[in-house]
Amino acid sequence: MIRDTADFERWFAERCAAHSFRVEQVPLDELDGWRTDPETGNLHHRTGRFFSVEGLRITATGPVARSWAQPVIRQTEHGVLGILLQRHEGVPHVLLQAKTEPGNINAVQLSPTVQATVSNYTRVHRGSAVRYLEHFLRPRPGTVRYDALQSEQGSWFLAKRNRNMIVELPPEQAVDVHDDYCWVPLPVLPDLLRVPHLVNMDTRTVLAGLPRPGPPPRKGAPGKPLHTWTDLQHHLTRSKLRHRVERCVVPLREADGWHREDGEIRRDDGRFFRIIGVEVSASSREVTSWAQPMLAPASQGVVAFLSKEIGGVRHLLVQVRYEAGTADVCELAPTVQCAPGNLPVSGPRPPFLDTVLQAPTERVLFDTVHSEEGGRFHHAANRYVVVEAAGLPLDVPETHMWVSVDQLTRAAQLGGMVNVEARCLLTCVHTLPGHGQEAMT
Amino acid sequence: MIRDTADFERWFAERCAAHSFRVEQVPLDELDGWRTDPETGNLHHRTGRFFSVEGLRITATGPVARSWAQPVIRQTEHGVLGILLQRHEGVPHVLLQAKTEPGNINAVQLSPTVQATVSNYTRVHRGSAVRYLEHFLRPRPGTVRYDALQSEQGSWFLAKRNRNMIVELPPEQAVDVHDDYCWVPLPVLPDLLRVPHLVNMDTRTVLAGLPRPGPPPRKGAPGKPLHTWTDLQHHLTRSKLRHRVERCVVPLREADGWHREDGEIRRDDGRFFRIIGVEVSASSREVTSWAQPMLAPASQGVVAFLSKEIGGVRHLLVQVRYEAGTADVCELAPTVQCAPGNLPVSGPRPPFLDTVLQAPTERVLFDTVHSEEGGRFHHAANRYVVVEAAGLPLDVPETHMWVSVDQLTRAAQLGGMVNVEARCLLTCVHTLPGHGQEAMT
Repeated sequence: MIRDTADFERWFAERCAAHSFRVEQVPLDELDGWRTDPETGNLHHRTGRFFSVEGLRITATGPVARSWAQPVIRQTEHGVLGILLQRHEGVPHVLLQAKTEPGNINAVQLSPTVQATVSNYTRVHRGSAVRYLEHFLRPRPGTVRYDALQSEQGSWFLAKRNRNMIVELPPEQAVDVHDDYCWVPLPVLPDLLRVPHLVNMDTRTVLAGLPRPGPPPRKGAPGKPLHTWTDLQHHLTRSKLRHRVERCVVPLREADGWHREDGEIRRDDGRFFRIIGVEVSASSREVTSWAQPMLAPASQGVVAFLSKEIGGVRHLLVQVRYEAGTADVCELAPTVQCAPGNLPVSGPRPPFLDTVLQAPTERVLFDTVHSEEGGRFHHAANRYVVVEAAGLPLDVPETHMWVSVDQLTRAAQLGGMVNVEARCLLTCVHTLPGHGQEAMT
Repeated sequence: MIRDTADFERWFAERCAAHSFRVEQVPLDELDGWRTDPETGNLHHRTGRFFSVEGLRITATGPVARSWAQPVIRQTEHGVLGILLQRHEGVPHVLLQAKTEPGNINAVQLSPTVQATVSNYTRVHRGSAVRYLEHFLRPRPGTVRYDALQSEQGSWFLAKRNRNMIVELPPEQAVDVHDDYCWVPLPVLPDLLRVPHLVNMDTRTVLAGLPRPGPPPRKGAPGKPLHTWTDLQHHLTRSKLRHRVERCVVPLREADGWHREDGEIRRDDGRFFRIIGVEVSASSREVTSWAQPMLAPASQGVVAFLSKEIGGVRHLLVQVRYEAGTADVCELAPTVQCAPGNLPVSGPRPPFLDTVLQAPTERVLFDTVHSEEGGRFHHAANRYVVVEAAGLPLDVPETHMWVSVDQLTRAAQLGGMVNVEARCLLTCVHTLPGHGQEAMT
């Protein structure tokens, strides 16, 4: 039974020791079970399932016109990312899992109760059954607390989305807890979210949907956000129509500026990412060894919110972001989302990037490096940052908008409005004083 | 100045007399400006703009597996459907337009303030400027009351959507009112919505987004809907994943079961609809004459809500509906939505159809035949019905769900959740006692 952070650390160290996991890079041509289509250059699994790596050509018109081509991960099947919630002695707990993924920095990270694609749970790769899946596929009436289809990395995936779910079990319902799982009390989560590469992306995105009461009424403060919900919806609708983004799936071979070399797919100038092959042996996965392609980013990214109290209400600065694979043109994103290493040496810097990078320590409210999905991305890491921006004017470029923490939380819960980086960072935001940390405690 | 229904009728009769409008059917091969691609059989405008008629093949798997092909209207450009709102002597008024459309029964119907596609307002067909457009393209801050991207007929359009907007002008702002426009007081709307073929589809869909206060608190009634908002979201998410609908645009020539004959495209058995050509001459449109293809339904449809008070709260029975062209698998739809004339003579009837058709008069709360969009559909009419279903059990088939009027209104306002038939019917529902008619009055 885990009561505090120290308990958790003991349990987690033990689980890490129990797992043996080996990941080795191999040339794409030697990936067992995968083939490169000789005509298109696309990478497919021999069953045609799981996912493929294909080419994508993007032509954006509107205020900023540009076009480019790139490899993209195409995964049409969805998955379930589900977290079980239960009160123990009145304290809400979430059931999390110590899980290895080939792309994880540190091999083992903390996953949702269930993290499974349809291929996983229909047993295409003949692994073992997915634990706790029944709670999400057939929840009892009245137990679902969150259920939304959410996008994932729009720069790397083509219109991928996963089902994000939270199901609350009644306190009296007994749950068998397997060795790799533990009930984590919600009050311990803020500590865990400050440990680099511990709480994985899937856990972070689902936690953004934790049911939250509204903020407690504050004496004297009118508590009205700067903009109405309708203003926010108007901003997003207008942004979807301002740009026209034409996407066309093309043979990977025809993605200009990319080439295959040394068993990898790389951009000619080495920027952005590579597609590599890995061989994995694990002692604790459904299947003990397999091979797969992965997307390996060239450098670490920054995802950051500027935060500011406006009229007694805590606000975050969001941007509307257009990404190659976004299903519906654009979504709300963090104030800053980029990999500085990908930026050209000269040329304009993304708005607010330097405000974040140069923020004095006392204004940095949150700063932890987390990993992105270790099942598809190899050592993909972002610095998750929240910076107090009390002095920043209310007037911002028209790509950006101040929204209250509650508004953004509501938008995230609806599904399809907030991108994965913003949702993951929002989970960190919720642990900050005055930023909605009162949820469910 | 229109103060009551009688005023409106005088004004409208005058506008009808002022318009001269002639629509004649011509064979598709003789449509000026349009061509049939000899390879695909698709219909295109010579500019490549406006819209095209192509083939669509649908394969649905899941609990109900079936596949079919059909012609579909493909219109990738969006339009703006916008209504100006303004208080005159404290009473909210909407600026509506007497407008002719080639497919309209009665030629002239009541349109939104602005009903324009991008082609209209960028003047592709060299018409005159679109009146009042600037209020929607460049609204003043804080004046937007509703702005959402909304789907249109999923059985006839491929993933078409239009921007639905309401903008409120301050009472003191002077607005030039052209002859074809008039400020209609909101309290007069319920009368107008009971006149067949008067308030057009575009007006009905936009009015579903009228800002509404919550229901007034009622003494003694807890006022809680049967299901939570999360339950509703869960129901819709689950429904999107239960079925897999694969859509593939194919040459119209390859739409099995359809053929070209007598200058029309028809289904072999005459069911569903025809694609016909029309020539139009108008005295009051941006352009005085033109030709275009239209979709002409084979028979009149029924769209109906069953309505029931549950726990002191008014509820509507919605269904989750999968249509060929729905952008995101399925949306919330009326309890019943079908054209009885298309049903096979034997075989199961859609749930609740006969409950609606056989409802005793005293249970019929609303019953008016309205037209669908007269710019694309020729004499497309649906009987809009609301039936009191006090005796109906709470337990319904899993395709259906009881939601409160407020929940459905909120879902409609968010965009992308509620189909056009349900939104149009919701506007009628809002005029019924106890169904949210208190909006803005």
